[in-house]
Formats: sequence, C-alpha cells, structure tokens
Amino acid sequence: MTSVPRIVEVRKNILKHNDEVARALRKRFEDAGVLVVSLVSSPGAGKTAFLEKTLTLLRQANYRPAAVVGDLATDNDAARLARSEAPVKQITTGTLCHLEAAMVQSAIEAWDLGSLDFVFIENVGNLVCPSAYDLGESLRVVLLSVAEGEDKPLKYPTIFNSADMAVITKIDLAEAAEFDRAVAIGNIQSVRPGIPVIEVSAKRGHGMDDWIKLLTSRTRPGVGELSRSVFFTT
Amino acid sequence: MTSVPRIVEVRKNILKHNDEVARALRKRFEDAGVLVVSLVSSPGAGKTAFLEKTLTLLRQANYRPAAVVGDLATDNDAARLARSEAPVKQITTGTLCHLEAAMVQSAIEAWDLGSLDFVFIENVGNLVCPSAYDLGESLRVVLLSVAEGEDKPLKYPTIFNSADMAVITKIDLAEAAEFDRAVAIGNIQSVRPGIPVIEVSAKRGHGMDDWIKLLTSRTRPGVGELSRSVFFTT
Repeated sequence: MTSVPRIVEVRKNILKHNDEVARALRKRFEDAGVLVVSLVSSPGAGKTAFLEKTLTLLRQANYRPAAVVGDLATDNDAARLARSEAPVKQITTGTLCHLEAAMVQSAIEAWDLGSLDFVFIENVGNLVCPSAYDLGESLRVVLLSVAEGEDKPLKYPTIFNSADMAVITKIDLAEAAEFDRAVAIGNIQSVRPGIPVIEVSAKRGHGMDDWIKLLTSRTRPGVGELSRSVFFTT
Repeated sequence: MTSVPRIVEVRKNILKHNDEVARALRKRFEDAGVLVVSLVSSPGAGKTAFLEKTLTLLRQANYRPAAVVGDLATDNDAARLARSEAPVKQITTGTLCHLEAAMVQSAIEAWDLGSLDFVFIENVGNLVCPSAYDLGESLRVVLLSVAEGEDKPLKYPTIFNSADMAVITKIDLAEAAEFDRAVAIGNIQSVRPGIPVIEVSAKRGHGMDDWIKLLTSRTRPGVGELSRSVFFTT
C-alpha cells in the first residue's frame, strides 16, 4: 500500500503529541501528590469489579480516590464505580480502541487534584492498542483473569512489557478453569522479568487487602519505587 | 490535533483498499465452493480451543478444513491447531491489533482451494479493531466466554453488530462464574437482533455437534442463508 509511509508518519506525530500531554499530566499529578494507577486488560478480565472494590476499600480507610473509565459505548462502568461514592468520570471512545492522554486531561478538568489521593484510569478492554499510549500514570497494572489461559503474556507481550505490575484476577475460578498459576506467572516473568504479580478475587475479596496495603504504602512520594519493589505471591 | 483530518483520510483509504481485496477473496472462495468462517473475540475467550475441536471433528467427518490464525507474537496457536492435522497457516501481526484481507490473501497463497471445504480465520484477540476489516469471510462468528460477563455485547456493540453468529464459550464454567445466560443472550440480541446464538464447551464437547451440523449443512451454496436462519438455543 502506497499510503503506509504516511500512516507511520501520522502515527508518530500522534504518539509524540500524546507523550507531551502525558508528561504534563504526570507532572500535575506528582505536584498534587496523587498516585495515578491505570488498569489495562482484555475485555472481561474484571477491571471494573477490581476497581469498584478498590475504591470502596480505599474510602473505608479514609483515602480519597477517584476514577476515570473508558469504554466504547455505555456508561455502565461509571454507574457501577459510582456505587463506591468516589468521583467517577466516564470517557466514551466510540470506535477508538484505547484511551489517550488528552482524554484523561479533559476528564479530570473539573477535579481539584489537591483533594484526591488516588486517580485510577480504567482503559478500554484491549490487550493491544493501549500499550503505546502513556496516560500520565505512575503505575500501569495489567490484569489477567484465570479464565483467559496462561499463554496470554506470550501472545500479547507488548502490553505486559509496558506494565509495572500484573494482577491475576478471578482466582475463585482457578480450579474450575484448571488454571496453572506456575505456568501463568512463569509466562508473565518471561515477558517482563521482575514484574510484581498479585492474585485476587474481587468477588470473594481474596488478595484485596494486600493490594490496598501496597497502594496505601506508596501514596505519597516514593511512588516510582513500587515497580522496582519485589512483591510476589509465590 | 491538526493531524486528525489526515488520519481520517488515510484510514478511509486503507479500509477501501481492504474492502477491494476482501471482495476479490470472497469471490475466489465462493468460486471454489469453500465456506470461510472468521472468529473474533476478546483474548482468552477460547477461539483456539473451539477451532481445534472444530477442525478435528470436521476431519473425522471426512471434510477438508484449513485454518489461518493471527497473533501478535508466537506461533503457539498454529502449533495447537496443527494437532488436528488440518493445514494451518500462522500470521504474525507484530503490534497490529487485527487481521487485514491482504494478510489472509498471502497466507492462503500456496493452498489449492479446490481441495478444501472450509477455511477458518482466527483473528487477533480483540473486541474492537477487527470489526471494520472485511476478510472475505462468508460468516463472521463472535465468541463470548461465560467468564467475561454478560455486558460485553453492550460495551463492544460494533463487533457484535458486524458478526453473523454468536457463540457463548466455556459453558462448563457457567455455574462457577455465576453466568446469567438469559441476560447475556438478551444483550446480544439487543445489539444485533435476530443473530443466531449457540452455546458450547470445547473442552467438554458440549454443543460442538450442533455447531458441526450447522456448518456442514451449509458447506455448498446457500451459505448466505445461515445468518438469516433461526438457530437459537433458548
């Protein structure tokens, strides 16, 4: 196709523009002392359930979280997350397969960052497209449900490579799904050596306290250390 | 962003080119009497397991199926599918989130279509990007696993809209996942009224015979009738 060089050029410009917006966002978040965590996964890995539980637990512990959630259509996720009583903003992307930094920037416009401890960004369910787009987050978390199969990190290496942490979700289904956790963790580690991995069931609550402890221990400064810390459940 | 009109234009050109290649492919497949079925779903919905079982059952019934499988990285899926002893061709897309018609065209180049009854095309696991790309298939099947949640059709309507048939997978996990099939089928139907829906467990074999019967009853001409036929499991 003769149009390929033009696409590459246009795509580079988009990514460059996105990186600039993301860099400015990250500075704003850091200056305000807000820990920004983005969640990426395939559709149905349980991002929203995990996030709803996270928001609820953080609020119970007197933290002030907020969430931005991206979807092609519907504001179902925002409605679910709003049950936690945290501020929630929906971004509807139409046919776009990922969030971009400018969308996050618009979404948080009305928020006083000084009154928040955490901002979570739930990306569109997609294991491919979001990997190239920096959203100004300090921590990118990739979720993988036990029902998806242990091979996903090998098949979608770019997104696992771009993540700072991996969360294995729906572990209450592990036995029924004949999930082999050693193989899954081995695959995650082979693609992204040293990445912290935790295992949770948002539905049953398993693993959520550890996750909250991990988050709250890192709220102020030192955020960048999280991805370098050793935090395995082996 | 000032570059948006250029992107739209470039994207339109790509889609137009893709449609032309797809149209030519479809004519070749139809002339050769090959039923071409594409599979789309989120990562981990079970496309490969479903396809492996389908290839094996079709070969046992003396049909001649072949498969083209797309992945960002690894040829794990091709290796799994090859166990069926059907011809299998892997397309590695790198960072591209979907297959395009030209890739399918290259992949099948060495095949004598006259010696085949079916060609299956397993797309990259993605509920967004593949929807806009015609691959020359006669039947596009969207898979949804019981572990993904009943709301996926509402959240990813474009791909369900572009499909001719929906397959609910991993029904052996339905109880453990607390899957509400009436809600799921209702959501599928609300997005794409009248679409045939079947329910299977490739692992346990449930529903596979019905699927094979459906495929083999449509191998020659009359393929287009499939999406208009009433084939519900209610």
